[in-house]
Amino acid sequence: MSMIQPLPPYLVQRFHGWHATGYQANRSWYRRLAEDGQRPRAMVISCCDSRVHVTSIFGADSGEFFIHRNIANLVPPFTPDGEQHGTSAAIEYAVTTLHVAQLIVMGHTNCGGVDACHEMCSGHAPDLEASTSFVGRWMDILRPGYERVKDLPAERQIPALEEQAVAISLENLMTFPFVSAAVESDQMTLHGLLHDIGTGGLRQYDGERFTAV
Amino acid sequence: MSMIQPLPPYLVQRFHGWHATGYQANRSWYRRLAEDGQRPRAMVISCCDSRVHVTSIFGADSGEFFIHRNIANLVPPFTPDGEQHGTSAAIEYAVTTLHVAQLIVMGHTNCGGVDACHEMCSGHAPDLEASTSFVGRWMDILRPGYERVKDLPAERQIPALEEQAVAISLENLMTFPFVSAAVESDQMTLHGLLHDIGTGGLRQYDGERFTAV
Amino acid sequence: MSMIQPLPPYLVQRFHGWHATGYQANRSWYRRLAEDGQRPRAMVISCCDSRVHVTSIFGADSGEFFIHRNIANLVPPFTPDGEQHGTSAAIEYAVTTLHVAQLIVMGHTNCGGVDACHEMCSGHAPDLEASTSFVGRWMDILRPGYERVKDLPAERQIPALEEQAVAISLENLMTFPFVSAAVESDQMTLHGLLHDIGTGGLRQYDGERFTAV
Amino acid sequence: MSMIQPLPPYLVQRFHGWHATGYQANRSWYRRLAEDGQRPRAMVISCCDSRVHVTSIFGADSGEFFIHRNIANLVPPFTPDGEQHGTSAAIEYAVTTLHVAQLIVMGHTNCGGVDACHEMCSGHAPDLEASTSFVGRWMDILRPGYERVKDLPAERQIPALEEQAVAISLENLMTFPFVSAAVESDQMTLHGLLHDIGTGGLRQYDGERFTAV
Repeated sequence: MSMIQPLPPYLVQRFHGWHATGYQANRSWYRRLAEDGQRPRAMVISCCDSRVHVTSIFGADSGEFFIHRNIANLVPPFTPDGEQHGTSAAIEYAVTTLHVAQLIVMGHTNCGGVDACHEMCSGHAPDLEASTSFVGRWMDILRPGYERVKDLPAERQIPALEEQAVAISLENLMTFPFVSAAVESDQMTLHGLLHDIGTGGLRQYDGERFTAV
Repeated sequence: MSMIQPLPPYLVQRFHGWHATGYQANRSWYRRLAEDGQRPRAMVISCCDSRVHVTSIFGADSGEFFIHRNIANLVPPFTPDGEQHGTSAAIEYAVTTLHVAQLIVMGHTNCGGVDACHEMCSGHAPDLEASTSFVGRWMDILRPGYERVKDLPAERQIPALEEQAVAISLENLMTFPFVSAAVESDQMTLHGLLHDIGTGGLRQYDGERFTAV
Repeated sequence: MSMIQPLPPYLVQRFHGWHATGYQANRSWYRRLAEDGQRPRAMVISCCDSRVHVTSIFGADSGEFFIHRNIANLVPPFTPDGEQHGTSAAIEYAVTTLHVAQLIVMGHTNCGGVDACHEMCSGHAPDLEASTSFVGRWMDILRPGYERVKDLPAERQIPALEEQAVAISLENLMTFPFVSAAVESDQMTLHGLLHDIGTGGLRQYDGERFTAV
Repeated sequence: MSMIQPLPPYLVQRFHGWHATGYQANRSWYRRLAEDGQRPRAMVISCCDSRVHVTSIFGADSGEFFIHRNIANLVPPFTPDGEQHGTSAAIEYAVTTLHVAQLIVMGHTNCGGVDACHEMCSGHAPDLEASTSFVGRWMDILRPGYERVKDLPAERQIPALEEQAVAISLENLMTFPFVSAAVESDQMTLHGLLHDIGTGGLRQYDGERFTAV
């Protein structure tokens, strides 16, 4: 394919810089990770958003977190219909093959996907309702959340929908038989978090509300 | 939901450490990112694997990379069938809403997903062939890659299939009309990379082969 | 001063990466530059704009270019009034102490300073006309350029004013006795360039017009 | 103007090399920077010295840093007298128009401007004391720094004055109302650095002393 381009020079430079420092300082661990395979303690489901860095805020080393990132950190309901479900595949692999001990869903404020969902569900984004809109169909997962927040005062709806993106994903997770089995047998714990981009704050979900950690 | 647990203390402690240091030193930038929204220059599609940290190897600050992570960094072909496609939604959002200038697919060595695909395609993993296997159905995306490598010497097949996970994703990307339009009009460039977990090395794809950066 | 903050972590990481690679590979030259002092062959006057990297586009090594950067790459007329003139000080040092052989003024397209000047001179930016506007008073240097372009068709005025930011700076440079003496005695040559941000192009000035290099 | 010369061939050649490589690999980003405008996260004030490359040591891509360079990285005190102040104009533009999140003053060792200031203030450079000396009048900004270091042992005075060039610039920055307002409201953070040309080292200022990053 002739349209593939070489890496821009500034990224080449930065890579070589990392290799000479971060990699060298930790090279025995990287080598062991390659030889023995990964054994992450947790799976994190977070958003693709460029402002969300779960490894930074938790000071995570290589090998600690198995991370799936999609638009708005959503988990669809269990649907074993033989079709391609990337999120479900990641969860299945983490729980049944890697046996992670924690499964964390981390949402965030100022989420473009949540905004788009609110626009769509409130009737202001007809484009997203087209069957050909990948973003629209993906955000359908959060429609039940919109039903729960639509009667709140206008300025409260988006923040509440950001919370719902975590709550509904946790609810959907429990529809996966291998997830509920692992949780019920204490093989794995579930956690819900909401990260504030501007203040850097972190709130956690207890099944009813979000409070600062 | 009573099964939601509070965050383990080691993560609470690390978060507070980050908030007192990394967040404080960069707090005005985080605030501005929250107020003005993200404007990432690149989208990166990489694997969920806990040993792959694209922000570390490229020294990326918050706001630089829009990152989608799934099993084996795969992109399915363009399929506008009205179903939920999380990867396609992430790509659509990055290209048509964020207008990223670069789209980078980064694979890696020692990939569990690629291993599973090889097992399945070579007839050694009947479980993965079940219609109910999310991992199996997801790895079907890489089946055309197996066909290209299955006649290589045995010890070459897995490394070649890791390369195919990048090559086929780039090929599938070009089946998305908004991707090919952006590439052909020079609004966006495509890049393919392969990261070696153990040596820390990085090779780039030119459409035919992978060579060290 | 308690308001001074430590460097954000991503910059610390990148610095250490550079030190382990770019610095190490060139360390004998850096050491010699420290011991013997700089002996740059050229002075470049360019804009503060973050999209203008004269060292990149000319592949310049450390020690080659003495670079002054201000808003819109402007040179004020020679005014030895005992006040603080940062641009004039940089030129005086380059010409009379460092004896650079070339003095290059490099403008660029899409210049925010030139836009602001055009707004101000055409009467659409009263704020910039206030005596307390540093940007406004600085852009006064380019007012004679506005007079030359104001009767062009509207869509031609900004591009022509970007060219004037180079032309007028070169004219003002010749009002400095030490500059004109060095030029007239062939100790130093003057050059005018205009860099196109989007296409990456470069045009040079021959005293009348700009043509591609 | 007949004294304008064409660009020397070695620079023409290097430019074409960059355009065929670095520009091509990053061309979509450059195009987007041209269409959407710059949004740099930081302003850097550094010296014109040819041995100081802030984009290199921080692996910065085009669009990251708004850079003002003058002799000895000095910031004069806030003086809204209607005269032309290029440094103040650059700061005003960065803070009030671009809303940069970080303002970094980076000094360096072996600074010719600092040496000249020391010569002048200690009575060994009568030429620099002339009202017509642009370099002398510019270095007057650093005179208060000389007062603080003049009683140190002789060999300590120059290194201490290089530190003062950073410290005094930071102090003067806070005399600009728009700077202090941005700092006090956490819209912008201030940072002070000192780069060692020979060793490649980097020290940061905490308001009292400089320590290695």
